[in-house]
Amino acid sequence: MIDAALQQFLDTLADAASAAILPYFRQSTAVDDKRLKGVFDPVTEGDRAGERAMRALINAHYPDHGILGEEYGAENLDADYVWVLDPIDGTRAFISGLPVWGTLIGLTFRGRPVLGMMAQPFTGERYAGDTTSAWYTGPGGPRSLAVRPRDTLAESTLMTTSPFLFKGDEATAYDRVQSAVRMARYGTDCYAYAMVAAGNIDLVVENGLQAYDIVALIPIIEGAGGLVTDWSGGPCWQGGQVLACGDRRVHAEALEKLRG
Amino acid sequence: MIDAALQQFLDTLADAASAAILPYFRQSTAVDDKRLKGVFDPVTEGDRAGERAMRALINAHYPDHGILGEEYGAENLDADYVWVLDPIDGTRAFISGLPVWGTLIGLTFRGRPVLGMMAQPFTGERYAGDTTSAWYTGPGGPRSLAVRPRDTLAESTLMTTSPFLFKGDEATAYDRVQSAVRMARYGTDCYAYAMVAAGNIDLVVENGLQAYDIVALIPIIEGAGGLVTDWSGGPCWQGGQVLACGDRRVHAEALEKLRG
Repeated sequence: MIDAALQQFLDTLADAASAAILPYFRQSTAVDDKRLKGVFDPVTEGDRAGERAMRALINAHYPDHGILGEEYGAENLDADYVWVLDPIDGTRAFISGLPVWGTLIGLTFRGRPVLGMMAQPFTGERYAGDTTSAWYTGPGGPRSLAVRPRDTLAESTLMTTSPFLFKGDEATAYDRVQSAVRMARYGTDCYAYAMVAAGNIDLVVENGLQAYDIVALIPIIEGAGGLVTDWSGGPCWQGGQVLACGDRRVHAEALEKLRG
Repeated sequence: MIDAALQQFLDTLADAASAAILPYFRQSTAVDDKRLKGVFDPVTEGDRAGERAMRALINAHYPDHGILGEEYGAENLDADYVWVLDPIDGTRAFISGLPVWGTLIGLTFRGRPVLGMMAQPFTGERYAGDTTSAWYTGPGGPRSLAVRPRDTLAESTLMTTSPFLFKGDEATAYDRVQSAVRMARYGTDCYAYAMVAAGNIDLVVENGLQAYDIVALIPIIEGAGGLVTDWSGGPCWQGGQVLACGDRRVHAEALEKLRG
């Protein structure tokens, strides 16, 4: 269903977004005083520049496709194909100078995520997938992506943006998962999902996501052999609660913990 | 005091450590089952290979210098010059595939840190300093490093390895600092100190450090205009409790919070 031209177009979009965003990365020193006074916000500026660059290319090459972006909203969402864009996912990492933010580029066909890329402009890494295969380009050379096997949560590494984002019942459910894993790490945003696809870690548990936070990542993890659902095991194409796992046994066990 | 040959030798050591360590990064998929059974540990293997490579070069080029390394211990610590080495600082990041670990190479003269480098082999970044100046090489090209100004903790970004590493009175003291800052991030180890030196964040608060966790980082932050002390304002050359700040006003305010 996904032709080679669309796959190549992912890289075209990522090239344009990278060129637009990277000049704003690690620029806090020069613009520091201004930024604190609200005159200049490198995240917002970079976000907007990145999304404008991608929207212009989509409109030029695929004028009948829709677009849903973090910064400039929705256009033509009734189209069969809709691009779902988050120019800078991981704004806290971005403004802290850490190279674990990413540009998210997803494509849905009649609502279902079918193609996606997470691009890290500073390191030059790109993680991409089309639900049946997934691939990496960057330092070390191109390779295919595959999740790693894990029998149990007890052997697993978990990542989430912050354990303090869960409240009430969600906090209780999350804590049941975290207390069962071997190691938990925080603050990695989209980079965590790329690490699942690459077989470096085993699961991500998050809540409160927007569609543009997750759509691009689903075809990558699925293409690498993993599974991305909501906390009930259903689709999470609209965001909300997300459970992304490399191994189906870990997914089943985590789902059980989340349900209580 | 620090001659150009010693500065260049930092890069020689980092080149050797990078070549030795990088093959072990993101190798968990292939060796997964073995590693879980304890037969193969990529961190330990990478650590040892990296430290062996650096020790061989030091012994060959500066046979009268001492060495203190994480993996192979101490030799000739009575020498005026002692190299203090941590081949992989940030082992949890390393085994999770995240590019926020680093190789730490420090040099002390009669106990005092005088030269240091944090090298990130995957991104190709190197942050170095000699207490009076600090410099970066890597993506974006070489440049000098400078901390950023901050009037108050309330405007500051804090990083620490994990808020859960502090217990009892230390936890209370740390919490006073964290509750006063604008943003706190976790899990960055040595990379956090490089971000202070580069002016991307404002302070790091940690405890329980070894000398090889901090010696290399002191000349970088001092060279960039910042300040690294223990929680009483004294030297932290032996590790223990560490407070590293870009701006002296933030350091004074954080010190006050830590003292209670």
